[in-house]
Amino acid sequence: MMIRFGIIGTNTITEKFVKAARLAEGAEIAAVYSRTEARANEYADKLGIEHRFTSLDEMLQSDAIDAVYVASPNAYHAGHAMACMEHGKHVLCEKPAASNARELREMIEAAKRNDVLFMEALKSTLMPNFTAIRNNLHKIGRVRRFFASYCQYSSRYDAYKQGTVMNAFKPELSNGSLMDIGVYCVYPAAVLFGKPNAVQAEAYMLESGVDGNGSLILKYGDLDAVLSYSKISNSYVPSEIQGEEGSIVINHISEPSQVRIHYRDGRVEDITDGSQIEDNMMYEVQEFVSLLAQGKLESEVNSHASSLAAMEVMDEARRQIGLVYPADAN
Amino acid sequence: MMIRFGIIGTNTITEKFVKAARLAEGAEIAAVYSRTEARANEYADKLGIEHRFTSLDEMLQSDAIDAVYVASPNAYHAGHAMACMEHGKHVLCEKPAASNARELREMIEAAKRNDVLFMEALKSTLMPNFTAIRNNLHKIGRVRRFFASYCQYSSRYDAYKQGTVMNAFKPELSNGSLMDIGVYCVYPAAVLFGKPNAVQAEAYMLESGVDGNGSLILKYGDLDAVLSYSKISNSYVPSEIQGEEGSIVINHISEPSQVRIHYRDGRVEDITDGSQIEDNMMYEVQEFVSLLAQGKLESEVNSHASSLAAMEVMDEARRQIGLVYPADAN
Repeated sequence: MMIRFGIIGTNTITEKFVKAARLAEGAEIAAVYSRTEARANEYADKLGIEHRFTSLDEMLQSDAIDAVYVASPNAYHAGHAMACMEHGKHVLCEKPAASNARELREMIEAAKRNDVLFMEALKSTLMPNFTAIRNNLHKIGRVRRFFASYCQYSSRYDAYKQGTVMNAFKPELSNGSLMDIGVYCVYPAAVLFGKPNAVQAEAYMLESGVDGNGSLILKYGDLDAVLSYSKISNSYVPSEIQGEEGSIVINHISEPSQVRIHYRDGRVEDITDGSQIEDNMMYEVQEFVSLLAQGKLESEVNSHASSLAAMEVMDEARRQIGLVYPADAN
Repeated sequence: MMIRFGIIGTNTITEKFVKAARLAEGAEIAAVYSRTEARANEYADKLGIEHRFTSLDEMLQSDAIDAVYVASPNAYHAGHAMACMEHGKHVLCEKPAASNARELREMIEAAKRNDVLFMEALKSTLMPNFTAIRNNLHKIGRVRRFFASYCQYSSRYDAYKQGTVMNAFKPELSNGSLMDIGVYCVYPAAVLFGKPNAVQAEAYMLESGVDGNGSLILKYGDLDAVLSYSKISNSYVPSEIQGEEGSIVINHISEPSQVRIHYRDGRVEDITDGSQIEDNMMYEVQEFVSLLAQGKLESEVNSHASSLAAMEVMDEARRQIGLVYPADAN
């Protein structure tokens, strides 16, 4: 079985996707959509993609594709994904899956109504090293804390300080630090521990209207998650899951490539999965394609519930920090 | 000038103090107070201390001492320190300086009224490596986040799980994770950035009535501090101050012995002060003695304002997590 992808978006992330998808078994990049013909052709020629569309409707009506990778700006995810699903196409949707939980609920309903697979393309939780974390979590005893830090100074912040507000800092595109970067901290918490009982949020708001950085505490019964993210400073500390018997130290939460358990008695166990490849977007494609091969319409890891829990955390955090998107008003 | 110390408390921490104080210039351990004569004598003989008292009043009326190191349980700090100061003795008071800010304000007033030096014995901020952090802070540009983690599984938690509640987990002694361990995260924030505008707190409460662990977000205008502490799990991640141009990574916030600046352009600058000695309680004694030698009655680092800011953060955190001490009712 070969899943033929159409792509919405012709940017750096879709280029990476095409490259990674070609490493996955059972995936094929069949078409690309861009509003302008020149852009569609340039992109398709460069990456060797057969079909190119300037009408989304035409791509979605076409028999050339089975699924769509949605990588438009965040604010358009819901609209694009819904259109795809209403045309019976499976959807792999870039993170964050939507602008808010209301949109996401509609998307999940559309997936069910149309019997299609809908999965959020949050890559880290599908990597072998995240699987290693999940498989070894029982070794550290009662989990007491998840700490995740993803802070990466954005070159777009340089532009911002020079007076140019690029997409990454535009509220009208449902962007900002929490949605672009913070999601890499929130989503693993959702996968590992589900929906928290309470959220506390703090952020530094830029004048453009989005958050430059932020911090969250999520409260789950017997454990808390402390999440820090930023597009205006860098972090050089690893992330960590603390249990009563040991702690799992994760070098990069967005791209775990080294994972070690430090036991309380001093032992250190390296649980890194050495098989993880560098083009690590491959794993989300592989998951998506494997699910379809098995006739499944939902991932057990990047499940609808995980996506919804993460989005509800982000909604609540945005409510507390006063970050409102135009999409929230719909 | 030689400052002759009397000591309140005959425990592990006072033993370390005696050892460290003997490395400081201008300090002498002259007396010890314990309620029981046997204990006082045993302790004084073991450590070679001349005077021993079983009456606190007698020690405080004695001309054999100039200052007192208060290292009784947290709940007794205020009472002991006030008594010392009313007798004209300078006070070096173990952290946390008091059970709450109300007590601490009374202590500061007593210090001023009696013209004595009052300083909180929070050791880390007086270490050469913390001075290195302060002296180099300007290099990292606008500071955006302070992250501090101090999580250390307590052997007393093993006892706790076996059914024995030791002092460290007793609310009547004003103990628990925030006061015992968290203060090492809160105090540096107070020294570096002062009193925050807002505090958000979360904790896991033990049945004994104290917090087993907790997390705080402190909001300061353009930066936040994220603080995590625990007595029921270990952490293996360093602490960090994130600036727009670089981040300072601190190996242990309670005992910094390696401090490095990671600049955004990839450069790494080691700003570790290699002169820092292992018996690092020495530095708090040295600060205290040096202040007296200069005729000063307050530290510029562990200032009254720093202690008060830290205590007010802890009061507010305790209010939010519902951690009430008997001392709060006085």
